[in-house]
Amino acid sequence: MNSPSTATLEQRLQHRLDQLTKPRGSLGRLESLALQIGLIQQRTHPQLVAPQLVVFAADHGLAAQGVSAFPSEVTAQMVENFLAGGAAVSVLARQHGLALTVVDAGVKSDFAPRAGLLDCKIAAGTFDASLGPAMSAAQCALAIERGREVVRALPGNVLLLGEMGIANTSSAALLLARLGGLEIEACVGGGTGLDDAGLARKLAVLRRVLALHEACRDPLAALAAFGGFEIAMMVGAALQAAQERRVIVVDGFIVGAAILVAARLDSALLGICVFSHRGDEAGHGLLLAQLGAEPLLQLGLRLGEGSGAALAWPLLDSAVRLLNQMASFESAGVSTRSPD
Amino acid sequence: MNSPSTATLEQRLQHRLDQLTKPRGSLGRLESLALQIGLIQQRTHPQLVAPQLVVFAADHGLAAQGVSAFPSEVTAQMVENFLAGGAAVSVLARQHGLALTVVDAGVKSDFAPRAGLLDCKIAAGTFDASLGPAMSAAQCALAIERGREVVRALPGNVLLLGEMGIANTSSAALLLARLGGLEIEACVGGGTGLDDAGLARKLAVLRRVLALHEACRDPLAALAAFGGFEIAMMVGAALQAAQERRVIVVDGFIVGAAILVAARLDSALLGICVFSHRGDEAGHGLLLAQLGAEPLLQLGLRLGEGSGAALAWPLLDSAVRLLNQMASFESAGVSTRSPD
Repeated sequence: MNSPSTATLEQRLQHRLDQLTKPRGSLGRLESLALQIGLIQQRTHPQLVAPQLVVFAADHGLAAQGVSAFPSEVTAQMVENFLAGGAAVSVLARQHGLALTVVDAGVKSDFAPRAGLLDCKIAAGTFDASLGPAMSAAQCALAIERGREVVRALPGNVLLLGEMGIANTSSAALLLARLGGLEIEACVGGGTGLDDAGLARKLAVLRRVLALHEACRDPLAALAAFGGFEIAMMVGAALQAAQERRVIVVDGFIVGAAILVAARLDSALLGICVFSHRGDEAGHGLLLAQLGAEPLLQLGLRLGEGSGAALAWPLLDSAVRLLNQMASFESAGVSTRSPD
Repeated sequence: MNSPSTATLEQRLQHRLDQLTKPRGSLGRLESLALQIGLIQQRTHPQLVAPQLVVFAADHGLAAQGVSAFPSEVTAQMVENFLAGGAAVSVLARQHGLALTVVDAGVKSDFAPRAGLLDCKIAAGTFDASLGPAMSAAQCALAIERGREVVRALPGNVLLLGEMGIANTSSAALLLARLGGLEIEACVGGGTGLDDAGLARKLAVLRRVLALHEACRDPLAALAAFGGFEIAMMVGAALQAAQERRVIVVDGFIVGAAILVAARLDSALLGICVFSHRGDEAGHGLLLAQLGAEPLLQLGLRLGEGSGAALAWPLLDSAVRLLNQMASFESAGVSTRSPD
């Protein structure tokens, strides 16, 4: 994003922002957000069109090791809940007019076909990563390609990423530890509800998994080793969105882990990502630091589903509306600051 | 809010939140927000109806001392801009379907009557507080009463407060220093755009003002001494909203200063306040600490107008929608957590 024409565009966007009837910079983070969206879309008058909230769901073989407070069945049950409109992300998508698509990336049970559900199942859950790789290299590549296909088929120019998968904070923590070169202890939290004993058990399991896959150090090898299908599919979705210059709104810890992998594969990816929030999961802050991300919200969320992305959406909408709809000092006849 | 029936209501609201299809507490700040709104409305199924964004505008005699980067004329020009739809707060109110009312609390120039504008002018700007009290005790009482009347006449059960008044960060800093017992240096920032020299000048002026009004120590005396009319009117608006148990969404530093005064007059007031954001103005953090406030957003805003309140509004809306629209574990057939 450092070509001469981008520099010029950035100046033109900044000039537009500075002409609006407000003290310079007084809209803070919304101004940098408007600038970023203009640069993503390569125009001085960006528009956000038909935002798509896509929730990728899959099961994890590692759940058998007791790393989650909830049983695996909850993944499928929550997919039904998303589609029935009763989950947090369903409520938020309705509130903000976000089109909601649920992708079965690899849930253990099957679903009756219906509107809003895409069957992209790679397998009925990953293999238990404490016993072997969560998926084969071929499955990993297929999941990434299907993630790309999902995005290719969607309208609009904004992709909000969400996920559901019992035990997937384990995959995210493993990816962060391995790719970020961090101690696993720092990356592991209680997920959606483990107590101290559960957390200790989770940590012991993850240490074994890391040792078992000591050799898996590059992004795709680590992804295949640790899973899951929903994370691999989000990697593909993000890569495709970057290729099409769609704005990506990143949800929490697990989506962030997918972005960490994707950013290692496409160095330009982070420029199109808007990080929605800093959550309460232990590793989330470390992950955001790895990505150099400045999230918009900090609300103590630890739900996933895309709930943080949906909550941040109105701020993106505001940023673009302010840039395009505010009067300028000249058009409104407002005096600029006194000469000092 | 500690009566037995309130305690019971709080338990019932918490029980409702804990039955929803999410790990307990995983919606973080939105859960405490839903709880607070339920307690304000004294019911387990709160509803937010016809939210009203009211921007109080007035001029400040102290502006003649060069405490602002912008000339006084900008107050009236921005009122016109609010009404014409070109200001930041106008754009945000449109985005979120917030009814926008602009109140002339004491702008120097007069406005042609029109929809959305209320003429509650106390005088054509306050007196220069570096030469004498900004307003008389009678003017202060009248402004508070008119603020109450404004709210009484508005529909709905949510009041979002905003303001416009060149030099009013000075009034806010003076009120914070005096009522909070703080050094003025800690309370003063660059407002909407002063440089270092301007800031030094502002600080020198404010020291003189504090010394001149050394005897004005109770909330109303300080308010009359330091101004302004828009702040006094917001004090009345907040007191009325509290009496009617409307939710108050507090904008930034200047609205916060009005809340500081109002909270000294009605100790129950803070319970109905939702603090929208922590801004970049130096004293804002100190003010929020005085009020024990946990703001929803931190976006580096320093605009005022009610822009922060409007940006936070969707989060209140989300909190109530999530409480009322999410499925329960039982209704959605989702398994609860495994026994540990």
